[in-house]
Amino acid sequence: MADAITSREQDYSQWYLDIIKFAKLADYSPVRGCMIIRPNGYALWENMQQALDKMFKETGHQNAYFPIFIPQSFLAKEADHVDGFAKECAVVTHSRLKVDPELGLIVDPDSKLEENLIVRPTSETIIWDTYSRWIQSWRDLPVLMNQWANVVRWEMRTRLFLRTMEFLWQEGHTAHSTEEEAVAETLTILDVYATFAEDFMAVPVIKGIKTASERFAGAVETYCIEAMMQDGKALQAGTSHFLGQNFAKAFDCKFQNKNNELEYVWATSWGVSTRLIGALIMVHSDDKGLVLPPKLAPTQVALVPIYRKDEERESVLEEAYAIKKELTDAGIRIIVDDRDGFRPGWKFNEYEVQGVPVRLALGPRDVANSTIEVARRDNGQKETVARADLADSILNTLEAIQNGLFERALKTREDMTASVDSYEDFKSVLDSKGGFVRMHWDGTGETENQIKAETKATIRCIPLEGYEEEGVDPVSGKPSKGRVYFARSY
Amino acid sequence: MADAITSREQDYSQWYLDIIKFAKLADYSPVRGCMIIRPNGYALWENMQQALDKMFKETGHQNAYFPIFIPQSFLAKEADHVDGFAKECAVVTHSRLKVDPELGLIVDPDSKLEENLIVRPTSETIIWDTYSRWIQSWRDLPVLMNQWANVVRWEMRTRLFLRTMEFLWQEGHTAHSTEEEAVAETLTILDVYATFAEDFMAVPVIKGIKTASERFAGAVETYCIEAMMQDGKALQAGTSHFLGQNFAKAFDCKFQNKNNELEYVWATSWGVSTRLIGALIMVHSDDKGLVLPPKLAPTQVALVPIYRKDEERESVLEEAYAIKKELTDAGIRIIVDDRDGFRPGWKFNEYEVQGVPVRLALGPRDVANSTIEVARRDNGQKETVARADLADSILNTLEAIQNGLFERALKTREDMTASVDSYEDFKSVLDSKGGFVRMHWDGTGETENQIKAETKATIRCIPLEGYEEEGVDPVSGKPSKGRVYFARSY
Repeated sequence: MADAITSREQDYSQWYLDIIKFAKLADYSPVRGCMIIRPNGYALWENMQQALDKMFKETGHQNAYFPIFIPQSFLAKEADHVDGFAKECAVVTHSRLKVDPELGLIVDPDSKLEENLIVRPTSETIIWDTYSRWIQSWRDLPVLMNQWANVVRWEMRTRLFLRTMEFLWQEGHTAHSTEEEAVAETLTILDVYATFAEDFMAVPVIKGIKTASERFAGAVETYCIEAMMQDGKALQAGTSHFLGQNFAKAFDCKFQNKNNELEYVWATSWGVSTRLIGALIMVHSDDKGLVLPPKLAPTQVALVPIYRKDEERESVLEEAYAIKKELTDAGIRIIVDDRDGFRPGWKFNEYEVQGVPVRLALGPRDVANSTIEVARRDNGQKETVARADLADSILNTLEAIQNGLFERALKTREDMTASVDSYEDFKSVLDSKGGFVRMHWDGTGETENQIKAETKATIRCIPLEGYEEEGVDPVSGKPSKGRVYFARSY
Repeated sequence: MADAITSREQDYSQWYLDIIKFAKLADYSPVRGCMIIRPNGYALWENMQQALDKMFKETGHQNAYFPIFIPQSFLAKEADHVDGFAKECAVVTHSRLKVDPELGLIVDPDSKLEENLIVRPTSETIIWDTYSRWIQSWRDLPVLMNQWANVVRWEMRTRLFLRTMEFLWQEGHTAHSTEEEAVAETLTILDVYATFAEDFMAVPVIKGIKTASERFAGAVETYCIEAMMQDGKALQAGTSHFLGQNFAKAFDCKFQNKNNELEYVWATSWGVSTRLIGALIMVHSDDKGLVLPPKLAPTQVALVPIYRKDEERESVLEEAYAIKKELTDAGIRIIVDDRDGFRPGWKFNEYEVQGVPVRLALGPRDVANSTIEVARRDNGQKETVARADLADSILNTLEAIQNGLFERALKTREDMTASVDSYEDFKSVLDSKGGFVRMHWDGTGETENQIKAETKATIRCIPLEGYEEEGVDPVSGKPSKGRVYFARSY
């Protein structure tokens, strides 16, 4: 190939884009900052959706759909919210184009809207406006809704999957009668996200709380899961917000409690997005291409038939289709690549680049011996397996790959997590290998900002587990209640 | 209830809106013309999506996702296309809001875009721009893609599900090396749509071709499925377009054929939308509420436990949960309504209004006798079934309801289909009972327009089956090749 994947060592950033290009996950679009999600990328997203959607439903949530447009005046109703989103939104001002004899197609000035519409950057405002009409009594609570949707944030510096102007996500919006219940919901979802990241994506995550400066615009508390990429940068993989009564107050959403008193409703919101695909790529892939965890891989097994002569072709393909049927019946997602005109080596490379977890090669000798060659994408190991044991063997291999990817990612993260007690060490760790740096913090925005300005590292989270430890913030010299996770991040 | 469903006879239009309201399918939104799809409505859409998506994949299609924004200049590239969509589109002109000290939140004039963006009304233009980069050789063809997405058309007169400013749909966009293959694809999808409508929605449809005036903007030929509503109005339920080389030429999309010659690529596009939910409501529902075909019903069976005393409660609920488990294992979507504080009669009414196909009632005597009461939503029949036969009995009942709804809808459509030979009869049928009127047509737009202006009836389609029959157009007196389907429509 004239065109090859850049190695991680050579240029990590270019490597990431090359993986997306060669594995055909996404493409740039003619609209700056918007991406085209190609079938390989979308199939991955569908598998992610399916797993998450099942978990949402098992925890009592229902899907619904709210309008893509938000009246401009709605954004203004929650003060922090408007500050957070007003500077990066797509504004619809007109409803018609017309052909001008001289200028060609232009916006029709007569179609100016009475009120501008914002393409949703997130849907709290329109949903809480609706909830204020739906919720009257404690009997109407809780409301546990989620929507799968596209959203738009006018980002200036974009990057496929990680930061795009339009992205796909799910946003949950729940309404509760008590603060306790809303906080519990926020944490339930944080657990769903962490379980999904670890069990399906094979990406270990730190659960924690964001500092005030990193909080969602309009939230009382933002909980998050944070993952570590191979280049030592952290990535926020999901957030779950306790919104208090902020949106209920902004949209006058009250309910009658069991004592017949009117109270404001308590709220949460939470979301994960196609950004997760970026995390998946950056955690597992290597210089040969994409590496996918079997639970999410659209194709788990690719079988490449090998033959030279026509009479070989028939018996090899017959066996290949029999294997396909058998593995499909065992619940394995398998394809047989029976395309003519492509060499087996070319096909091997194709599946390696696309991250298919297991590749089978089947030739005339295998058919004669009732064997087949099984190759693992994650570690390159090959073995010859007896045909009779194939389904069991592959199920075991897929599980081993799933677990192995998680273990490897966990080890990488542990290698990239350091605890430091001086600002010198902090800077030196960040500059030498990056990763998470656990350091005492005095809890003030001043120190946080100073560190960010001087090192480009931010507080990724105050961890939910293993936080409490009396100490001293080495930057300010003030007392600290525990170590927080710093990192440079995407 | 103070509030009740208006009867069809009293006001069909209001009846339709009442069904949506009482069955909690959708709600109006603060943005004029946009709807909120509530959980009951969205669950229905999810079931529709799932069935259709499976059929698309079985016919070789893959899902992808293209940007929501289309550069204004793209719309202008295909002449018919721009005529069709320029007058009804949401135009994004700015990317930022700001707070003005006097006016409050306003659009920031400094954020005016260099080129306006259109919120997609359909995606042919951005997709063919992309295909022109992806397709070089016959080896790259066919491209068989679909996307599930939201689209926006600035409709002035909207109606929940049937015609909304934003709606959800799927749009397939395929690219082919020959005209024959593209036409075959168009018809494959038309068959998928017809099969889905009849087998899942239990809605009989006429497959046909649109006249030039009803064609999709940019298509060479538009195929459609047309359904008949209970009030005698037709509804277009899905369209599949053969686009010829129109978009390939507009976006300069050529491929090298097997003879090394450059040719323009052949195209199709096709879509169905949340409008189908409107069709479903209007074909099957009655004055008591929604009626759903079991294959699409989110809940197929609702079990209402009945008890007075606490000791009854325990045994009845125990049996109810055992039944739930048994039916769930048999693949039936069942809920047990164990909510306290609601009378059984209130619950019965709830499931009737929401269209749950089968309602079970289980009281202490049933538990003692090992029986249960089974009530059908479609015809109101009740029977007592032996507990041991329950799963089989319900599977049979669900199938009987599915088939019965189709047969009933087919009979209604047949009763509402007339063949006429004079313009007098045509008008009299339309005004007395509506429905489809099969009449000879001379094939000219003049006659079509005259009929439309005089009667508000349009040609719904030139049917694919049973069309050919020599005759005379009674309006123009000119010769006709066959009878076409006229109707007033939604």
